[in-house]
Amino acid sequence: MNWLDEVKWDRDGLVPVIAQEAGSGDVLMFAFMNREALQLTAERGEAVYWSRSRQKLWHKGEESGHIQQVHELRLDCDNDVVLMKVTQLGHEPGIACHTGRHSCFFQRHDNGTWVADRPVLKDPEHIYK
Amino acid sequence: MNWLDEVKWDRDGLVPVIAQEAGSGDVLMFAFMNREALQLTAERGEAVYWSRSRQKLWHKGEESGHIQQVHELRLDCDNDVVLMKVTQLGHEPGIACHTGRHSCFFQRHDNGTWVADRPVLKDPEHIYK
Repeated sequence: MNWLDEVKWDRDGLVPVIAQEAGSGDVLMFAFMNREALQLTAERGEAVYWSRSRQKLWHKGEESGHIQQVHELRLDCDNDVVLMKVTQLGHEPGIACHTGRHSCFFQRHDNGTWVADRPVLKDPEHIYK
Repeated sequence: MNWLDEVKWDRDGLVPVIAQEAGSGDVLMFAFMNREALQLTAERGEAVYWSRSRQKLWHKGEESGHIQQVHELRLDCDNDVVLMKVTQLGHEPGIACHTGRHSCFFQRHDNGTWVADRPVLKDPEHIYK
């Protein structure tokens, strides 16, 4: 059986993907892949997602240079979520978030509010130019 | 503005949630919460999910004893994914997966196949009795 057929694609033909930094263990971002994106990710060793907003393949870093080198692809017990171990390239420390932060998860719940407690490492205007 | 109103709930009124082990950094599982589940999780300091298959609140560990103590709730840049730092209680090392494994992500992609490369720590028949 083809490994791509074993993935339980959702009603939109997508699978949720968690990108985790290999070195630090930090969860960097969460996005989706369709079948083609997952195949390309495995072939290239670089993260290729499916952009739901733009409805097209999205080679992460194609504009920003912040490419994700993929070391490992893992699948969960229900075959419907992918976990990817990556190195976030293009900046030190790595920038995975379009806001210029290391991780997309920069808001912490604190007593009934969400507090942004992680710094912007690079101005997004200088990332996407 | 109420912190629960800032979450962008999907068309089913749910938000995807990543549970990460606070000590090891291991990604343990992925599930969903509705508004009530997220509120209860924050109030109790224990993970309460929404079970899509059973269509009801699911206090993780209610049957297995494998409760997730919640240390931190984080929200991503689009306000539509939650990352939760937890301690997996009830067994040492922690068992988050219903298969009796530490993490749900026990299958690794290897040359066109998915290989289960993590051990079962406890027989599921002895977890759910």
